[in-house]
Amino acid sequence: MIVALAGGVGGGRMAAGLSRVLPPRGLAVIVNTGDDFEHLGLHLSPDLDSVLYTMAGVADARRGWGRAGESWNFMSAIGELGGAAWFRLGDRDLALHVLRTHLLGRGLPLSEVTRRIGARLGVRHAVLPMAETPVRTRVRTARGVLDFQDYFVRRQCRPRARGFHFAGSRAARVPRGVRRLLVPGRTRAVVICPSNPYVSIAPILSVPALRDWMARRAFPVVAVSPIVGGAAVKGPAAKIMRELGEEPSAAGLARHYGPLVDGWVVDRRDAAHARAIAREGHAVVVTDTVMDGARKAEVLARTVVAFARSLTRSG
Amino acid sequence: MIVALAGGVGGGRMAAGLSRVLPPRGLAVIVNTGDDFEHLGLHLSPDLDSVLYTMAGVADARRGWGRAGESWNFMSAIGELGGAAWFRLGDRDLALHVLRTHLLGRGLPLSEVTRRIGARLGVRHAVLPMAETPVRTRVRTARGVLDFQDYFVRRQCRPRARGFHFAGSRAARVPRGVRRLLVPGRTRAVVICPSNPYVSIAPILSVPALRDWMARRAFPVVAVSPIVGGAAVKGPAAKIMRELGEEPSAAGLARHYGPLVDGWVVDRRDAAHARAIAREGHAVVVTDTVMDGARKAEVLARTVVAFARSLTRSG
Repeated sequence: MIVALAGGVGGGRMAAGLSRVLPPRGLAVIVNTGDDFEHLGLHLSPDLDSVLYTMAGVADARRGWGRAGESWNFMSAIGELGGAAWFRLGDRDLALHVLRTHLLGRGLPLSEVTRRIGARLGVRHAVLPMAETPVRTRVRTARGVLDFQDYFVRRQCRPRARGFHFAGSRAARVPRGVRRLLVPGRTRAVVICPSNPYVSIAPILSVPALRDWMARRAFPVVAVSPIVGGAAVKGPAAKIMRELGEEPSAAGLARHYGPLVDGWVVDRRDAAHARAIAREGHAVVVTDTVMDGARKAEVLARTVVAFARSLTRSG
Repeated sequence: MIVALAGGVGGGRMAAGLSRVLPPRGLAVIVNTGDDFEHLGLHLSPDLDSVLYTMAGVADARRGWGRAGESWNFMSAIGELGGAAWFRLGDRDLALHVLRTHLLGRGLPLSEVTRRIGARLGVRHAVLPMAETPVRTRVRTARGVLDFQDYFVRRQCRPRARGFHFAGSRAARVPRGVRRLLVPGRTRAVVICPSNPYVSIAPILSVPALRDWMARRAFPVVAVSPIVGGAAVKGPAAKIMRELGEEPSAAGLARHYGPLVDGWVVDRRDAAHARAIAREGHAVVVTDTVMDGARKAEVLARTVVAFARSLTRSG
């Protein structure tokens, strides 16, 4: 069993690629829920949606979020009625939010709601929220502590980030499907998808059971760098790295994760960084990492899986 | 102040007509909420919506419910995800349901939610739910007791009706805006819109405060017959009248309401019924009552208002 840690666009694409090269029983994707929030009374889980939609092949590739072939009549009517319109919800996408909110309201755990929706979308691999209970990413900025979506969508990451906090993570209840992966010997390798290290991967690792599992591991951890040529493929990762005094590069990212990652997958454009990472004792694979298209994601996934299988943890 | 009792398509059209001939402070519409229900976790108020949309001029006239220029992508995605799809919700319409549910969840009373939404839609006259608290119409049928929308939409009124019950009406809390209308001397006349007597008007009159107000009234009550030429203009009123052993005609309707109505407005096609109603001591006006178009609704409203003003209650 290979376990992917994922959030956002890069996470969805990597997870979709892995799902094309691994059988349903050979892959589980643990997804960040730190972005989740309540909006207009609806429970939104943007990262779960990105991963589900991308794995199901219904994501809008150009926009990077939501569904392909989307329409926006709900949004126009919400604006007309004076409802909050800063977070855009497509008409098709809304069905997922309404249904999830409805099922959660009936007492189903988030993991079961995700399983049902995934099954209806034709996703055959396990997609698991990192927690059943709310964990909420908060951003410390020069303008005070902001809720994640306020920072990320409403303010478009403009405020300078000083740090991140994951409210609720200490007491987070981990889904049964995730707990099963934590049993020693169950997981053969972990893939950290090319997701934002601060707001996609850090919330997952802030959950004590997951952090401990990674710290005590006997399996290799492979990470795909979301930083290519000094910039994030998508999103604010590079900007945040700079703001927090880290070098926005594959090598900076390797230093950020330190011994948590055994093997790095780095883009060809970052060959110099790859050598620096290798000098620090990590295994490195250099390849094309930008997944513009399902085919490229699949090719990258094959490389990542082969790399993970080739590594045996020395520690 | 003229007070209209309304529900459904006919109620919405009559209310819209009245709003074109009476100033904002001269008309209040009390709307049936017995059709309200929870669906996919959303609070739906179909009659409030019909009245608001029609008064705002955004209703779909042909379909008879929902908004004009509607799209259905939410419905197609809900079906795909395995959610209940028997009650159709348009993409624009959904904004109202989501917003109402959200505001109710934040603790606002239904009347205040309705006022805010009406104001955003440009409705300047008071549109008031008959109750703040849930009143739910249940239908006794040969197939047992059915929730209203199960009977009305899912089963399309096919089961034979044996009677109606309005759960929650005895303990219903009446909105402040309605209570103000009940103060003696405040209401000059009541107009019973051409709405279904069993499922639109009866629930309103099942609320004790409203029933008592009507029983002890010093103002005239004028009703517009929803039965024209032996059939309902829209909906199952005639079918239900037959099932309950009443004559599906304007005269049968006058017997149904008895002394609750002082003056009847009857369609030209029902002149014979008009004479029968007059013989039983009611005032009657014969005119065109079918409101196919806003202009016709306005003409009818003028007639209804003049008729109401001409009546002085004798009892």
